[in-house]
Amino acid sequence: MPAPADIEALIALMARLPGLGPRSARRAVLHLLKKRNLLLLPLADAMRDLAETARECVVCGNLGTADLCPVCADERRRNGQICVVEDVEDLWAMERSGAFRGRYHVLGGTLSALDGVGPEDLRIPRLEERIAEEGATEVILALGATVNGQMTAHYIADRLAGAGVQVTTLAQGVPMGGELDHLDEGTIGTALRARRAI
Amino acid sequence: MPAPADIEALIALMARLPGLGPRSARRAVLHLLKKRNLLLLPLADAMRDLAETARECVVCGNLGTADLCPVCADERRRNGQICVVEDVEDLWAMERSGAFRGRYHVLGGTLSALDGVGPEDLRIPRLEERIAEEGATEVILALGATVNGQMTAHYIADRLAGAGVQVTTLAQGVPMGGELDHLDEGTIGTALRARRAI
Repeated sequence: MPAPADIEALIALMARLPGLGPRSARRAVLHLLKKRNLLLLPLADAMRDLAETARECVVCGNLGTADLCPVCADERRRNGQICVVEDVEDLWAMERSGAFRGRYHVLGGTLSALDGVGPEDLRIPRLEERIAEEGATEVILALGATVNGQMTAHYIADRLAGAGVQVTTLAQGVPMGGELDHLDEGTIGTALRARRAI
Repeated sequence: MPAPADIEALIALMARLPGLGPRSARRAVLHLLKKRNLLLLPLADAMRDLAETARECVVCGNLGTADLCPVCADERRRNGQICVVEDVEDLWAMERSGAFRGRYHVLGGTLSALDGVGPEDLRIPRLEERIAEEGATEVILALGATVNGQMTAHYIADRLAGAGVQVTTLAQGVPMGGELDHLDEGTIGTALRARRAI
């Protein structure tokens, strides 16, 4: 190995990040070592600080640095709508769209018989508590259009049937900028069945 | 912003790494926050340690954690050959090939009139000192097959003309696994001119 063990160890850690392979991790570490004061030290400090302060929001499961995440801490977002997402990255994606003004509920995954993930593993009981506590009027299921995502959506819809809350789900169809000949048959079929008058 | 300022700050720092854009930096940070003890803390510690210990080898310019890098510290590699590379990543690439058993000399870039990089900026004077000090017999120029790389190679070859050392350069030609119809004309032309009997 041309680099000493300490540097190789950092490369190995970096290579475990999603999106970085062994080669790009090596390049990233070299870049860090060249930009010691500008990048390496600030990054090390930011990581160490967040390792101590980052925690899950006690209400919705979003990641933040306080008991309440920025969304749950904002009283204006208590509008009766709860958007259920699989994971924190989905919550962030919804927020980037700027289209939703209510609160979230992070499940922490999807139901999966194969992986032995049941409703108790997914903060579904906590969702029922929140609906009652917050007097929610609508639960929007923003789960992935995957087999497990849709199975989980149907399970939650069934379970909330008697909870006196409207349960909706994201529309499926042609994505913005989508060209028909690049779309899969399933998407086109769904979009056709859900066609609407213009 | 769905995430608090501290997390956004870490995402912004990560996005400055080569190979990570804003989106993959966000994914990487979420991954780090989920693997706090397994990845985030070890990474923060490894970075902080290296920020203190990493330094350039006083002989060749390789990165290491001691005054002498592992290559220069290995007496068996003092074989009279010095391989000149542009940057540390090129040194590491040469080492991965396992084909070279001598020592290195990292220039720290290439000559560039446009960017105002002259010989004094590139450890070229130090190369001349080393040739005398180490009694080198061969200088292998392993610079990129780019305009600046080749210009730098020719400049060094000229400058070392009277130094009593053999100056060689890497062969150019068809890369291993290279298919002719995917290669550029320049490579094919070079390989044809440098053809050899088999």
